[in-house]
Amino acid sequence: MMVQSTRKARYPSAFDTYLSPPTERDTERPAVRSIHRWLARRIALSVGNPPVAIRLWNGEDAYIPDTPPVGRLVFHHPKGLYAVICKKELGAGDAYTAGHIDVEGDFIGVMQSVFSAIEAQGAEGVRAFKSPLLPRLPKIVTNTPAKATRNAQYHYDLSNDFYRLWLDENMVYTCAYYPQPDMSLERAQLAKMDHVCRKVQLRPGMRVVEAGCGWGALALHMARNYGVSVRAYNVSHEQVRYARERARAEGLTDCVEFVEDDFRAITGEYDAFVSVGMLEHVGPSDYDGLGAVIERCLKKQGLGLLHSVGRNRSTLPNAWIAKRIFPGSFVPSLGKIIGIFEPYPLSVLDVENLRLHYARTLKDWLARFERRAGEIAQTYGEAFVRAWRLYLGGCSASFAAGNMQLFQVVFAHTGNNDVPMSRRHLHKDETADRGAGRPPIP
Amino acid sequence: MMVQSTRKARYPSAFDTYLSPPTERDTERPAVRSIHRWLARRIALSVGNPPVAIRLWNGEDAYIPDTPPVGRLVFHHPKGLYAVICKKELGAGDAYTAGHIDVEGDFIGVMQSVFSAIEAQGAEGVRAFKSPLLPRLPKIVTNTPAKATRNAQYHYDLSNDFYRLWLDENMVYTCAYYPQPDMSLERAQLAKMDHVCRKVQLRPGMRVVEAGCGWGALALHMARNYGVSVRAYNVSHEQVRYARERARAEGLTDCVEFVEDDFRAITGEYDAFVSVGMLEHVGPSDYDGLGAVIERCLKKQGLGLLHSVGRNRSTLPNAWIAKRIFPGSFVPSLGKIIGIFEPYPLSVLDVENLRLHYARTLKDWLARFERRAGEIAQTYGEAFVRAWRLYLGGCSASFAAGNMQLFQVVFAHTGNNDVPMSRRHLHKDETADRGAGRPPIP
Repeated sequence: MMVQSTRKARYPSAFDTYLSPPTERDTERPAVRSIHRWLARRIALSVGNPPVAIRLWNGEDAYIPDTPPVGRLVFHHPKGLYAVICKKELGAGDAYTAGHIDVEGDFIGVMQSVFSAIEAQGAEGVRAFKSPLLPRLPKIVTNTPAKATRNAQYHYDLSNDFYRLWLDENMVYTCAYYPQPDMSLERAQLAKMDHVCRKVQLRPGMRVVEAGCGWGALALHMARNYGVSVRAYNVSHEQVRYARERARAEGLTDCVEFVEDDFRAITGEYDAFVSVGMLEHVGPSDYDGLGAVIERCLKKQGLGLLHSVGRNRSTLPNAWIAKRIFPGSFVPSLGKIIGIFEPYPLSVLDVENLRLHYARTLKDWLARFERRAGEIAQTYGEAFVRAWRLYLGGCSASFAAGNMQLFQVVFAHTGNNDVPMSRRHLHKDETADRGAGRPPIP
Repeated sequence: MMVQSTRKARYPSAFDTYLSPPTERDTERPAVRSIHRWLARRIALSVGNPPVAIRLWNGEDAYIPDTPPVGRLVFHHPKGLYAVICKKELGAGDAYTAGHIDVEGDFIGVMQSVFSAIEAQGAEGVRAFKSPLLPRLPKIVTNTPAKATRNAQYHYDLSNDFYRLWLDENMVYTCAYYPQPDMSLERAQLAKMDHVCRKVQLRPGMRVVEAGCGWGALALHMARNYGVSVRAYNVSHEQVRYARERARAEGLTDCVEFVEDDFRAITGEYDAFVSVGMLEHVGPSDYDGLGAVIERCLKKQGLGLLHSVGRNRSTLPNAWIAKRIFPGSFVPSLGKIIGIFEPYPLSVLDVENLRLHYARTLKDWLARFERRAGEIAQTYGEAFVRAWRLYLGGCSASFAAGNMQLFQVVFAHTGNNDVPMSRRHLHKDETADRGAGRPPIP
């Protein structure tokens, strides 16, 4: 199947400068060789000497770790070395995209070794607490509704057909939940949606609001399986169009309404508030606004859930991800997420860290992406495929290394005593095959 | 049974000034009466006009709420009014202790109505974000090891026999866990200890460290039921003496060691770190030190748990509790608790808010306390009984109203992937009758 897209992919043009093939140079003189070897070793040292070998374009093993290597980074061109040295993660990402760097061995495993070495070194912590940029972060990442819309469109409006190639059939583009290790991605996404629905204790007849609904999978799932009515907000035009079509095809338009608007425009009062994977696109200066929306829209006896990528502490965002994949994104620390609720009469009831589930989800996505990589390259180009491989595989590795977290936070109004006394109900029949036998969505 | 105590109770002396009975005064002149009526209404207004009536010493109903009242506050003397007006919660607590104020109707219910009205008013939030004292809190509540020892002794060394009168047979003086609503306190304390053990995934042969062990119930429970060896720290001499006796009586001295020392003195490396109800006695300026101890003592593949009273946001402590019940105590916001881990390579895995369980625990404690109130009054005096009724009942109400929270936080080293994928294991047979049939501890 060919990727159908009427939109021009923007990735190749962004990377065109890197796409010229490595030219023969005067790189084989001994002095130059020893500089390149030294640079390669500097790179290994700067990320904490991971168990990953480094080989240069001339076949030279510039760095061999003390322990048996998990895999090998191959620099095909000196440009790759220079990019990593000068522009760090941004340079590394762009150089991989351009084909100046390759990974031999298990892609995710190699990346995970690198991230783990960085973590072990405490580099993240040092960066977090020493960067002079940190206090300015809220200003750097400020997303007005218009900017938030542009940012979301950059990523999510790429083309629905593109995402259909490798997401599950319900098009869920957030961390899945694998209560059984052998679950398929399809089943794990259903399990995640049920996990969310149980956490906010959905009961028939309730009214639910969803802030940031993607292609509408969760909203439709709630209406279909829990007998609730849902109003779901999203700024991505393509996603809302797709979600509305699905609601029509399933005959769920009476109970699911998709609104193409920013979460700040939410009106009404609801029994449950859910937001899965939107917070990452909200600038920290808007957290207070999000808290105000939640306080206003959640009924006094309601429950809410916020699901977001997070970190152990405030750090500067990964420059490559922030520039090439998710412009305007901001990955908050758990403390920062908790801070959303503090100015309001809201209580945090439950926090669950699902980072290993996101590592697994991204691994599953990457495997499915790779199976369609040929088709995708035909439409979007090879650089696009490499960028997305790095994004999916790198993020999987980052979650596996503990560099990134995935937090689900359940909250309620202060003094709401209509909350479950234990979390046992979350795990009743959670592995039951809810999704099986359901006809695939057209 | 008479309370056996060789220590002089300090409570009566602290309240002696209040103990003189109300004297006849010139309070019945119309102008004075109207001032007193006005003051009573001011008090009702200042806490958000709760559904609680106020009656004065002369039988006058100074305040009748709009909705049917839950109960009635009776001021037996103008001193009570003046104390509340001038010294707020400290004055109110002392005036109740002295018998100038009484509560008619359900004690906890009345207090809960008051706290809920305060919460609804947003007073806590305003205080939190506006008090000029807040930034100085870390300096105000700084507990050196010596001061921490004195503070702990003030409360916990009161007399083991006193606590034996109304705690469960295992002498657990922290929030219990009631997975079944009809559980007894005894069973709920066992369920809590099992909940903690499951959260840190105890397995036979593991080494566990406990920071702040009370009378040793959890340490002994872990050794007895999970086959682990435990080293438990506590600065309270009376508690450590008692815990050591129990370990000897049960023949558990080989696997449980009680150390009379501050948590900062913890040495060694452990598979699990647990601390249940100690954090409240650690000043916020020592949180960084606690994080450092955790990072140093918890093995790379270990799990840790911190269980503490908490709040939705930073607020000044309740002045009466801080002065009369728990000197040097500090109730942190969840954000502040999360902040313990941020400077270190540690990840938060799970947060559970058990505030309704603490409301229930304190209610159970109060009922048992009331059954022995006569005996306690004989040893410690009537003012002591009233102060402790107010403390137990008031705290129960505060948790029920959502003014206070109880957080259990599970954490691990960053990148520890030897963690459970789901929390289902916490709820397997959690209501099984583990404790039944066990001989009572001598």
